[in-house]
Amino acid sequence: MNVDALTGGFDRRDWQEQTETDDPVRFAMIGVGWWTTEQAMPAVDAAELCETTVLVSSDREKAADVAANSETVEHAITYEEFHDGAASDAYDAVYIVTPNALHLPYVETAAELDKAILCEKPMEATIERAERMVEVCDEHDATLMIAYRMHTEPAVRRAKDLIDEGYIGEPLFVHGNMTEPILELVPNPDQWRLDGELSGGCAVMDIGIYPLNTSRFLLDADPVAVRGTVASVQEEFADVPDEHGAFQLDFPGHAYAVCTASQNAHLDSHISVLGTEGKVRVEPAFYPWDDRALQLSHEGTTVDIDFEQIDQMEEEFEYFAHCLLTGTEPYADGKHGLVDINTIKAVYEASETESTVTLD
Amino acid sequence: MNVDALTGGFDRRDWQEQTETDDPVRFAMIGVGWWTTEQAMPAVDAAELCETTVLVSSDREKAADVAANSETVEHAITYEEFHDGAASDAYDAVYIVTPNALHLPYVETAAELDKAILCEKPMEATIERAERMVEVCDEHDATLMIAYRMHTEPAVRRAKDLIDEGYIGEPLFVHGNMTEPILELVPNPDQWRLDGELSGGCAVMDIGIYPLNTSRFLLDADPVAVRGTVASVQEEFADVPDEHGAFQLDFPGHAYAVCTASQNAHLDSHISVLGTEGKVRVEPAFYPWDDRALQLSHEGTTVDIDFEQIDQMEEEFEYFAHCLLTGTEPYADGKHGLVDINTIKAVYEASETESTVTLD
Repeated sequence: MNVDALTGGFDRRDWQEQTETDDPVRFAMIGVGWWTTEQAMPAVDAAELCETTVLVSSDREKAADVAANSETVEHAITYEEFHDGAASDAYDAVYIVTPNALHLPYVETAAELDKAILCEKPMEATIERAERMVEVCDEHDATLMIAYRMHTEPAVRRAKDLIDEGYIGEPLFVHGNMTEPILELVPNPDQWRLDGELSGGCAVMDIGIYPLNTSRFLLDADPVAVRGTVASVQEEFADVPDEHGAFQLDFPGHAYAVCTASQNAHLDSHISVLGTEGKVRVEPAFYPWDDRALQLSHEGTTVDIDFEQIDQMEEEFEYFAHCLLTGTEPYADGKHGLVDINTIKAVYEASETESTVTLD
Repeated sequence: MNVDALTGGFDRRDWQEQTETDDPVRFAMIGVGWWTTEQAMPAVDAAELCETTVLVSSDREKAADVAANSETVEHAITYEEFHDGAASDAYDAVYIVTPNALHLPYVETAAELDKAILCEKPMEATIERAERMVEVCDEHDATLMIAYRMHTEPAVRRAKDLIDEGYIGEPLFVHGNMTEPILELVPNPDQWRLDGELSGGCAVMDIGIYPLNTSRFLLDADPVAVRGTVASVQEEFADVPDEHGAFQLDFPGHAYAVCTASQNAHLDSHISVLGTEGKVRVEPAFYPWDDRALQLSHEGTTVDIDFEQIDQMEEEFEYFAHCLLTGTEPYADGKHGLVDINTIKAVYEASETESTVTLD
C-alpha cells in the first residue's frame, strides 16, 4: 500500500472549489434548542460561506435572548410569523431542527418562499409526510438536503475513498452501532424523542439511522431487504416501539449490514466494513464530541490513523452553502432521505411480522 | 473501577484444582490432518494432565510417520481397527477431528468402548445425527465434551467475568464476526468444508459457530429466535448454501447478537458485548495464531488490556483432562453443542423462508 494514501493525499473537502464569498448564505434556524445554540450556530459562525441571520422559535423571548448574543442574527420570530413570510428577505436558506413530525410544514413554507432547505434527519416521522416533503420541493424547485453529517465527516470520507479504491476488495459485511442513554443526556421523560407521534420511532429512527445511512454511503448502495427486532422494555419508552433495535440490511451483490441502536445503553458508536481483502473501521464514529479514528486492516497489517478533528456541523453547513453558491445539487436530497424512512419503517414491520421485508 | 480487577486478580484457570498427575489422560486422536499434528498434538504434549498415545487415520503410513516423531504415541491404527477396538487399552479418551458428518460413528464406537469423548465443533452435520450423538453418550454414560476452545480462552473468560460482575450493566448487543479466505488457507477446492454432505454447511456452520457460541457463553443464555441470510456466490461454494452468512440471534431479556461469517473474505475475528453501562470487546478473538486482546469501555474511559497469550488448544485439552481426572462434568456437553446445530440450521431456514425462526 502506498503510504501517501494513508498519511497524505487525502483532501477532506474534495468537494470544495470556492473557499470565500462576499455574499454568504444567510440561514434561518427553525428551532432554537440546545443543538441549534451549541452545535449549529457556532458551526455556522465558524464557517466561511454562511451566517445565521434569523431565529425561528415558539418562544420569542428565548429566541431574542439568543439573538442578542449573536453578531449576525437580525431577526427573532415565531413559527407563525415564519409561516406568514416574516423577515423572508433576511435569509436564503433554512435549517430545520424541530421534532421529526414537525419538519414538513416548515419545508412547505420554505419551499413556497423559494428558500433552500437543510432538514435534519430523519426527514419526517412517516413515509407519507416524507414523500410529501419531496413532492413539495419538486413542485417549487426548491433545493432540499437532508442533514447527514457523516457525508462530510473526514474519517468516513476517507474510509469511503479507500473502499472505492478497492482497498478492502469486494465489501461484504458492515457492522454498525449507535447507542446512548438518552434520559441521561436529555433528562426529561416528556421529551419528543419518546413521543411516538412526534418522533415516528425512537432508537432505530433517531440514531439507528446513522449506521443505516452510513452503510449506504460507504457501500454506495441502497438496501433491498430488511430484517430485525425492536423492543421497548422500560416504562419511559412505552410510547415508542424501539428503546432498543437490532436489524440486518441486505444490499445488492451479497453485502450485508448488521446494525444495532439503543436509546438506553452505554454511549458508543462505530462502523466497520469488511471485504474480501481488508477492513476499514471508524470508531468512535457518529458523536460530534468524540474524536473519530480510522483503523485499516489489510494483508496481515493493522494501521490506526489519527488526524485533525473537525467540527462535523461546520463541515456540513459549509458543504450545503457551497452547493448553493456553486449551483451544485447536494448529495443527500429528499429522495435519498426517503430511502432511510422506508428502511426504518421496514425494520419495524419486519419485527412486527417476524419476516424479511423487501424494499423496492 | 478497581484496578486490580483489570491488571490482576484474574485466574485464567479458575476451574483448576489439580495441576499434576502420575496418571495422565491418554488420548487417541481420530483424524491426523494438519490441525491434529500442528495444533492438537503439540498442545497435548505441552499440557500436564494428558498425553497422546494413539493415532487413528485412514492412512496408516501417514499415522505411523507422525507416531515415529512422537515420544508418547504407542499405536497408529486405521479407522476400521479403531471400530474393532484395537489398542483400546492404550487410551482413555478420544479427540475427534474428522469432517463433521463423520463424527457420529467414532462417538458411537468410543462410547461403546467406555471412552471419554472430546469432539470438534460443529458436533455433526445434521440435527438428527447430533441428537443421536447425545443419545449414544447417554446410553453408555459416556462423557462427551464439544471442543469450544473459547470457553477456556483467557480473553473471553475475563470478558465473561466482567459481564457476570455487572461491569457493562445489562447486556444488550453482541457484535461478532469470523471470516477467512478458506481457499487460501487450505488451497484445495475438493476439501470437505465445501462438500455439503460432509460439512452440513460452510461459513455459518464452520466459523459462524464462533460468534454464535461465544455469544451464548458470554451472555450465559441460549437464543430464542433467529433471522438471517446466507449466500454462495463463487463457483467453488456451489455445493454449500453459505459462502457468506449474516444472522441475528434474539436472546431472552431483549439481548441481541448480530453476527457475520464468511469463508471467502479477509481474515478477521472479533466479538463485543455492549450493555447499559459499558462494553467489552475481544479482538482478535477466535484464531489461535492471533494475539487476543481485550478492550473495555465504561463511564467515558476505554482501556486496552494485553496479557500473556496461551495456547488455546492446550487450555482446552488440560480442561477436559482435568474434568476427567476430577470427575467433573465438562461445561460444553452434547446438549450444549446441539443448541448450536439447531441454531445454525435455523439460520439456513430463516434465509430460505425469509422469516424469523423460533427456537424451542
